[in-house]
Amino acid sequence: MPGAPLVLTMGEPAGIGGEVAMKAWLRRESADIPPFFMIDDPDRLTALAGRLDWPVPVRPIDAPEEANDVFAGALPVLARPLQGHPTPGTADPAHAGAVIAAIDEAVGLVTGNRAAAVVTNPIHKLTLTQAGFHHQGHTEYLAELAGGNCRAVMMLACKSLRVVPLSVHVALKDSIAMVTEEAIIDTVSITVDALKRGFGIAQPHIVVAGLNPHAGEGGTMGREDIDIVTPAVQKLKQSGISVRGPVPSDTLFHERARSGYDAAICMYHDQALIPIKTIDFYSAVNVTLGLPFVRTSPDHGTAFEIAGTGVADERSLVAALKTAAYMAERRRNAANAPEDSVA
Amino acid sequence: MPGAPLVLTMGEPAGIGGEVAMKAWLRRESADIPPFFMIDDPDRLTALAGRLDWPVPVRPIDAPEEANDVFAGALPVLARPLQGHPTPGTADPAHAGAVIAAIDEAVGLVTGNRAAAVVTNPIHKLTLTQAGFHHQGHTEYLAELAGGNCRAVMMLACKSLRVVPLSVHVALKDSIAMVTEEAIIDTVSITVDALKRGFGIAQPHIVVAGLNPHAGEGGTMGREDIDIVTPAVQKLKQSGISVRGPVPSDTLFHERARSGYDAAICMYHDQALIPIKTIDFYSAVNVTLGLPFVRTSPDHGTAFEIAGTGVADERSLVAALKTAAYMAERRRNAANAPEDSVA
Repeated sequence: MPGAPLVLTMGEPAGIGGEVAMKAWLRRESADIPPFFMIDDPDRLTALAGRLDWPVPVRPIDAPEEANDVFAGALPVLARPLQGHPTPGTADPAHAGAVIAAIDEAVGLVTGNRAAAVVTNPIHKLTLTQAGFHHQGHTEYLAELAGGNCRAVMMLACKSLRVVPLSVHVALKDSIAMVTEEAIIDTVSITVDALKRGFGIAQPHIVVAGLNPHAGEGGTMGREDIDIVTPAVQKLKQSGISVRGPVPSDTLFHERARSGYDAAICMYHDQALIPIKTIDFYSAVNVTLGLPFVRTSPDHGTAFEIAGTGVADERSLVAALKTAAYMAERRRNAANAPEDSVA
Repeated sequence: MPGAPLVLTMGEPAGIGGEVAMKAWLRRESADIPPFFMIDDPDRLTALAGRLDWPVPVRPIDAPEEANDVFAGALPVLARPLQGHPTPGTADPAHAGAVIAAIDEAVGLVTGNRAAAVVTNPIHKLTLTQAGFHHQGHTEYLAELAGGNCRAVMMLACKSLRVVPLSVHVALKDSIAMVTEEAIIDTVSITVDALKRGFGIAQPHIVVAGLNPHAGEGGTMGREDIDIVTPAVQKLKQSGISVRGPVPSDTLFHERARSGYDAAICMYHDQALIPIKTIDFYSAVNVTLGLPFVRTSPDHGTAFEIAGTGVADERSLVAALKTAAYMAERRRNAANAPEDSVA
């Protein structure tokens, strides 16, 4: 029996979400993409496909359970009509309610086991904020919907690298203050747990990047690596985790180095994002760890400047869909496995 | 008539400098390495070659002018004997005087046109400091020897990328304070000049990385990109330089992005070093811009942990030697070219 389908949210309807979703659907056979359905307005997608002259039949469905059968012949869409059609490239706060409702509904479906995992299309935070959305971001909102007492952690993954930044969307100087023992310990622990449950890695090997150049070189270029990172790594080791660091971040991401660990914990956004986007700009996936369900998303934004033109690259969404299905299956197997099994 | 040979300093004699130099000499034909001579102790190099069983005849010379003829059949060494043989892996402050004297002499030879360019082997700053060396680093010392009123700027270069960090060996939090309009303008100007004179690029295209994630995303993640980087870029543009930025640093280093500029100016050490060492860990070269002569060095340290074993990778020194020769020839041509020529 095939598992439940993936649910893909609408995201900002003036962005490229609809286009990359249709492009992914068109590659469903060649790229071996697992069945998914969207929560979206079927009419706006049909209009978009027509404008772009893409052979994507859009099929409204009433329930997720219809999606697996529909998927081979049409793009299944749990129909949630918008008020008026969005204009590609121009976000309209009037659609904010529907954007948020799609996220809410997707979380309800995955927690009710009617969807295997949530894949989210990019939202445009400023537009949502103008409409009264007061959450820090997409991921934080999902964490709240999931119950509030989970710490959501962003991982970026491509074929040869997984990176987890300690902080995300804050100024560089503020991110330095967020390098604490507690944050490192929490982030490593969540990552290890996710690699076991979601990726089937029995004993994950973790490396922790240093904050300063050369990891501070004995304290001559900043004390944080000695005073904060080192003790955190020691405590993690004592708890039985395979972890090493702080390692100078510039020595950590070349091909041979990457083969030595399962995930690198990075001290700030760009320390994680620079290497992965240098290596694989188009197919990196954003995976949210620490939630009670699987959530992935493409690693790009709404791309208003190209929305509606059909040139958007679908590779990151394709990878997000495939990664979500893989992780959901791993977690299902882990849940059904004997208690002492990890995958 | 062949030009003057390159001069290669001894560097820390307990490090891997001698080994990579001999490995590079062994590849002189296959890798098309330009003639160079070392300032070093011929006896200690002969002993090292003997211990490693490498076919490297070491030939003492009395003057740089002998090097070109010697080079095909032996490694030419301007003989500056050490007091006792160094122990690989264990630095001895007793040799600090000779380490520094080799640098001094190399600068004298290149400014006197008896060497085409200076290539430096890695030094071990702590050992030199213990012996009374009070300069901030190798590069700063070279700048002083060169006359003091030049601003030396470090560029790292590999085949597909050149990066120039605004600051180098300081704590990350201190590097943020070093992001000033003046520093950006100076660094871009020096880089443009060097690309014209040393690399023969008539109209260099420069990109300036943002300091904060997403270059601050309109000021929501830090104001420095708006308040400092943007005005600096504007002023540089007004002075006729082809420059753009601030650009989010995670979008700047994938293959397609790299083809859009000749050098990326980075706001701190790891923002520059992470991408280049991710792309090309073994062959990146350190080029010092802003000096009145050409200086390059391999992009690694003394590597005490492997010194004396023969496993050290010579590729970065090979690239440093070839880059130095290329740049020296460019500068010589530029000096001989009509005044309105740039290459």
